[in-house]
Amino acid sequence: MPGRLRTYLDWNATAPLLAAAREAMVTALDLSGNPSSVHGEGRAARAVIDGARRDVAALVEADAAHVTFASGATEAANMVLTPEFRMGRTPLKVGKLYVSGIEHPAVREGGRFEKEQVVEIPVTHAGMVDLAALEALLEAHDAASGLPMVAVMLANNETGIIQPVRAVAEIVRKRGGLFVVDAVQAAGRLPLSIGEFDADFMILSAHKLGGPKGGGALVSRGEVLMPKPLIRGGGQEKGHRSGTENVAALAGFAAAARAAQDELAARNERIATLRDRMEERMAALAPDLIIHGRGMARLSNTTFFSLPGLKSETGQIAFDLEGIALSAGSACSSGKVGASHVLTAMGFDAALGGLRVSLGPTTAEGDVEQFLEAFARIAARRRQGVAAA
Amino acid sequence: MPGRLRTYLDWNATAPLLAAAREAMVTALDLSGNPSSVHGEGRAARAVIDGARRDVAALVEADAAHVTFASGATEAANMVLTPEFRMGRTPLKVGKLYVSGIEHPAVREGGRFEKEQVVEIPVTHAGMVDLAALEALLEAHDAASGLPMVAVMLANNETGIIQPVRAVAEIVRKRGGLFVVDAVQAAGRLPLSIGEFDADFMILSAHKLGGPKGGGALVSRGEVLMPKPLIRGGGQEKGHRSGTENVAALAGFAAAARAAQDELAARNERIATLRDRMEERMAALAPDLIIHGRGMARLSNTTFFSLPGLKSETGQIAFDLEGIALSAGSACSSGKVGASHVLTAMGFDAALGGLRVSLGPTTAEGDVEQFLEAFARIAARRRQGVAAA
Repeated sequence: MPGRLRTYLDWNATAPLLAAAREAMVTALDLSGNPSSVHGEGRAARAVIDGARRDVAALVEADAAHVTFASGATEAANMVLTPEFRMGRTPLKVGKLYVSGIEHPAVREGGRFEKEQVVEIPVTHAGMVDLAALEALLEAHDAASGLPMVAVMLANNETGIIQPVRAVAEIVRKRGGLFVVDAVQAAGRLPLSIGEFDADFMILSAHKLGGPKGGGALVSRGEVLMPKPLIRGGGQEKGHRSGTENVAALAGFAAAARAAQDELAARNERIATLRDRMEERMAALAPDLIIHGRGMARLSNTTFFSLPGLKSETGQIAFDLEGIALSAGSACSSGKVGASHVLTAMGFDAALGGLRVSLGPTTAEGDVEQFLEAFARIAARRRQGVAAA
Repeated sequence: MPGRLRTYLDWNATAPLLAAAREAMVTALDLSGNPSSVHGEGRAARAVIDGARRDVAALVEADAAHVTFASGATEAANMVLTPEFRMGRTPLKVGKLYVSGIEHPAVREGGRFEKEQVVEIPVTHAGMVDLAALEALLEAHDAASGLPMVAVMLANNETGIIQPVRAVAEIVRKRGGLFVVDAVQAAGRLPLSIGEFDADFMILSAHKLGGPKGGGALVSRGEVLMPKPLIRGGGQEKGHRSGTENVAALAGFAAAARAAQDELAARNERIATLRDRMEERMAALAPDLIIHGRGMARLSNTTFFSLPGLKSETGQIAFDLEGIALSAGSACSSGKVGASHVLTAMGFDAALGGLRVSLGPTTAEGDVEQFLEAFARIAARRRQGVAAA
């Protein structure tokens, strides 16, 4: 249906750029200098990065000196997920990486660990990291191989289910391990504090919270324990990440971080109301609807649902034709729609398709209305055995 | 002197964003989708990346399928400088990396090679890679350790001197090695062809040719021989480089690549005339001036000079106060001005300071005039033993 108004409900895949982030970027694009240059133009670019570091640090209640900028969360994950660390000048070895079965591929792939060093932590049918299983895994950890490292996301990108990171931290601490929290989907949606979570490292992405694609950060608890650099060269970011900094992206990241801080409560209250009403009406329209994690503590913007008889791929195309951008779980790099590894890890049949609606700060009631109209049609067609128009 | 008009003559550190690149970026900032999403918004973002791949490939006469985008040239260098390759599914080991003494730190640091695997190729006093020395080094290469890999820049970032990459390729081919050409400073200033250079890989940066900071590429000769991925995760870039693509940066990179192609000859002829006249007048103003590589084939935009008695740091500050942004060799990550490793590799005394003036497509005669006025004052003050105001 050409010319039809589009409704974007795929904020967990990427958030449209916030107006404030766009403005900060456009201004930064006109800075001519290299932030490593000592002349006035260089210093002006450096000042933007220094400010961005403070704003991103504030988002997670960290020290600005503990923010290492990267080109995105995937790079930040690869930076921290490595067997080789240093405690000051002393090398420190990590023997195994424990990641939950519902982690994002950027974490699940294990970064610089060899495949056999990566151990999966089971999740419950309800979509939560299985704490007892983690405890058993760490008890069996061979300390001679090096320290254990545990990486768990704060909120799942598909279901929105909030993970018990504080409880995970307690288990990791007992075993003297390192703890990495992937806060990519939680940022801008939940209050974040590296100290409260008792994490050693946190991973952030700019584009999931209304900043631009191309910005991310690894936030560390301190400066002494740091991973072996992933990208070496000119020695930027105190040697932790070389390469000329993406000044404009970091300016946009900072603006999005500030907005997330300032608007967090108001933003989420409004979105939660929209989302909850939407789910009620969806359930009324299709009584066999499954909303994953509906009874759990979830991000207020996310609805991950299955409609029996509607495949992920068919459903996504049908909604796209109706003008609705939503997703079949996480955005898949190949442009194909695969089975959700999250549903599989939760013990669901891989054939049960999942579709994800994710709202954002500028999502209006009209967007939800448009979605519900399409949902009603697609759910009805599905019952007639014709899902796609 | 607050309010004084500034003149930017540090294009080799980073080029101000071209108007066409800025426009392409601002347009791309408004694309809401994740290029990995299958919906309309995702496909629109994907189309920008596909187009950028064609434009960047055209710049080096490569196949679009052989362009792997990265967050910059430093990342691209770390991607390719690794002992671990694959030829299809077969692992291939590289035993040693040979880099010239005048390479950029992004290459000199050796990427994923251990320190002891990196061997320095000497350069001549004239600032060229020493071909006889390279030949001797490769002759002594221990094939049992793996293949040799040679990385040489096409044009040096400090002196602008053009390196004999075709001759290097011949030497590398005889030994069955891999050849990487760092074309970062040459792009937009010299015609580029991966086939003509007989290189296996080329490294490109967006921001040195008028695109944005945050974009780069590794261009390969084919698709079969590829390095072990540096950043793993969602499988973007055919699995060679995971992470959500920086759509806006790639749009800007593409626009800069197109402009470089279209305007190369006209741009460089004008710049060469400006630069050569500038050098003549500098030499007249300071008869003891040394212009490094003046008799050599050089980039037409670069003048790297030493004024006996003027230290790099003092000189750079003095010019900055006069409103001129220039550089003491390469932009140093720490914001400090160190001794030029290029001058040292060429056999000059490290105490001999070097200053680099680098022009660009929008550099006007007035800019050069302003520089020459400042140069005259600083050169005169230097003779009175008072370099900085």
